[in-house]
Amino acid sequence: MPLRLHSAQSDFEDRFSDLLGGKRESSQDVNDAVTAIIADVRRRGDDALVELTNKFDRAGVAADGLAFGAEEIAKAAATVPNEVREALQTAHDRIKSHHEKQKPQDQVYTDALGVTLGSRWTAVDAVGIYVPGGLASYPSSVLMNAVPARVAGVSRIAMVVPTPNGEINPAILAAAEIAGVTEIYRIGGAQAVAALAYGTKTIRRVDKVVGPGNAYVATAKRQVFGQVGIDMIAGPSEVLVIADASANPAWVAADLIAQAEHGAGAQSILVTTDARLADAVEAEVDRQLALLPKQALAREGWDTFGAIIEVASLEQAAELANRIASEHVELALDDPDALVPAIRHAGAIFLGHHTPEAIGDYVGGSNHVLPTARSARFASGLGVLDFMKRTSLLGCTPSALSALSSAAVTIAGVEDLDGHGRSISIRLNS
Amino acid sequence: MPLRLHSAQSDFEDRFSDLLGGKRESSQDVNDAVTAIIADVRRRGDDALVELTNKFDRAGVAADGLAFGAEEIAKAAATVPNEVREALQTAHDRIKSHHEKQKPQDQVYTDALGVTLGSRWTAVDAVGIYVPGGLASYPSSVLMNAVPARVAGVSRIAMVVPTPNGEINPAILAAAEIAGVTEIYRIGGAQAVAALAYGTKTIRRVDKVVGPGNAYVATAKRQVFGQVGIDMIAGPSEVLVIADASANPAWVAADLIAQAEHGAGAQSILVTTDARLADAVEAEVDRQLALLPKQALAREGWDTFGAIIEVASLEQAAELANRIASEHVELALDDPDALVPAIRHAGAIFLGHHTPEAIGDYVGGSNHVLPTARSARFASGLGVLDFMKRTSLLGCTPSALSALSSAAVTIAGVEDLDGHGRSISIRLNS
Repeated sequence: MPLRLHSAQSDFEDRFSDLLGGKRESSQDVNDAVTAIIADVRRRGDDALVELTNKFDRAGVAADGLAFGAEEIAKAAATVPNEVREALQTAHDRIKSHHEKQKPQDQVYTDALGVTLGSRWTAVDAVGIYVPGGLASYPSSVLMNAVPARVAGVSRIAMVVPTPNGEINPAILAAAEIAGVTEIYRIGGAQAVAALAYGTKTIRRVDKVVGPGNAYVATAKRQVFGQVGIDMIAGPSEVLVIADASANPAWVAADLIAQAEHGAGAQSILVTTDARLADAVEAEVDRQLALLPKQALAREGWDTFGAIIEVASLEQAAELANRIASEHVELALDDPDALVPAIRHAGAIFLGHHTPEAIGDYVGGSNHVLPTARSARFASGLGVLDFMKRTSLLGCTPSALSALSSAAVTIAGVEDLDGHGRSISIRLNS
Repeated sequence: MPLRLHSAQSDFEDRFSDLLGGKRESSQDVNDAVTAIIADVRRRGDDALVELTNKFDRAGVAADGLAFGAEEIAKAAATVPNEVREALQTAHDRIKSHHEKQKPQDQVYTDALGVTLGSRWTAVDAVGIYVPGGLASYPSSVLMNAVPARVAGVSRIAMVVPTPNGEINPAILAAAEIAGVTEIYRIGGAQAVAALAYGTKTIRRVDKVVGPGNAYVATAKRQVFGQVGIDMIAGPSEVLVIADASANPAWVAADLIAQAEHGAGAQSILVTTDARLADAVEAEVDRQLALLPKQALAREGWDTFGAIIEVASLEQAAELANRIASEHVELALDDPDALVPAIRHAGAIFLGHHTPEAIGDYVGGSNHVLPTARSARFASGLGVLDFMKRTSLLGCTPSALSALSSAAVTIAGVEDLDGHGRSISIRLNS
């Protein structure tokens, strides 16, 4: 049974706070283990990589087998049914088209004093994409990570994907092929992150590492941050559906189930102004779960982390949504646009009854790598800007320097940085 | 004596790689100490904060004295000479004016299928700004952190600044006043980061923590990343001057010294196509250092980390600059614009003979919080975008959903997420 709350309950604030603060993943402390793995890869390079890969993934590789060969990729990708290839191609094209609109413009201007100021964007040279193995090995995630990097102009993309027992979903390789990713290694875990960050004989180091992973991968990313850039520390996925009486309970239920079936702490919350909808959705979830092949996983997630919250108004719903700061917010309303300005913290907002979150996971065109665990308070979904960086430009004419010199030298003085002041004043008497 | 290299030397590549790989700060392992401090502040709140502050800063505060009072701020700020206030106001106004141009535009459009796609930017609600105490307590840094946050629309800015022995530079408080920062706490170190990230009775938690600090602060930021956003892990400051025969050796020398006087691993590098300039700059640095009040610090920095590299061409200079990926790159050339496109990795580029880096530190208008330690390969300087986040919007009409459904359901199938597919197909038959 999911949690049922009503904002009129006297203990609502306490119970809602508990829901907000509830942990949905075990915070496994793998810090020391990861530190040791990274040190080992830095010291022994490929040897450590091979040893750790064979130990953790039982993959049976040698150093010369760490990389997938071009033929091997083509052969595996060719086993993927045409229908799947075409679907991935459609997803790719729509993601590409949307992300192309995210490319930033350079901006250079000269102000009234004659100071030239500018922002110039350039692509990161080399990016590493981590793709999980096993259950959460999603070809769609390959596209969501690789396409923005390519649109940004990243010239080298190195993908890593663990192959437990030597196995890989060929659709992963098909997606890589469609995205134009040709450098792929059968490694995973902290050792893969270490190899990408520091380089080995086989794997040249990259400048930034993106992509989700387990506790080892997340901890390794945290530890190598600074040596390379990272995207975010991804947590369990989550959806918040805001619905009123206009919503179809069967559709809302299907969306809550779609989130819950991720397992691993995934959370589905319904916030509604309509008591009858709340009841109907709860019954529908039960009914539909019984039809799902993987019903046990989804049911456990729904029972453990699911919640249905009745509120007095859509304004109140938006207030709760901002406190939850969900990865995905669905507005199952006839006029979703009216509520959008009130939802300030959300990874992505899905508008209206005909936009199930799953459409955004695959073919909507927007990115499905989104901030989780309330980090939409400060973070954005993955995009082209994550693969670029801004360089500021500053240029003074002699007269502009002269006009600014007094203020600058004064501040240098109060900061006890005389050399700073002198680097300005020395240019004035000539 | 600084390192002298010439790209024509047979061992140049090895020696340049050594320069690149050289560590400029001791990597003090304070990980466990910081973990304990964060846990203590989470558990005991204000009590831990007061105890740690009195222990590390000898500040003699009680819980009700953690915050600076409004009168106290005004009184301290009033002791700052008018000339300094005016200089800080000039800096503030120029920084504000430039950063206002960084505000992103929302973008919503409908594609040919009838899918609405959008990116909407909103401000982070609450930001914590860390200001170091002691030697590196710079009022200019208060402006560089606070102004972009305000321009972004951040509604709450909480500033922390340690007061060793109870002392604070009043110019820090004047800068805060000018920037409109009114919530200021006399705390520092890992305990201040913990308080900002998790909150205590006195200090409400924020959503993002920015600002430089020592090894404890940097490690604390790394550990709380995810709970809150962080900006970057700042390292020692650095400048790379690219100069040809047109450069004035005395000016170049002054700029190299300005960087070196930061101490603490700061690095100054000159790359030049002109042997005579290289010699003249080296002599000038020696001469000018003798005139500097803090010459010992700057000389030690220059001798330990400084370098002069002769190269065959400006193209080669740009190539080395990209490998160094310096925080600051000065182009001491008659035609700096011609070389800008070739410099792909740099925090900021300073154009021409009349743009000493120090002008950008204070009053140029661009931000002086820039990526160090080669992180310009993947990171940008601080800006308005760091205080905002992007929410993606997606909306389907019934016909758009229908057009996209087949590809989406196919990918859901190959990812073994039937619930995802069902949340789409359930909407089609109605």
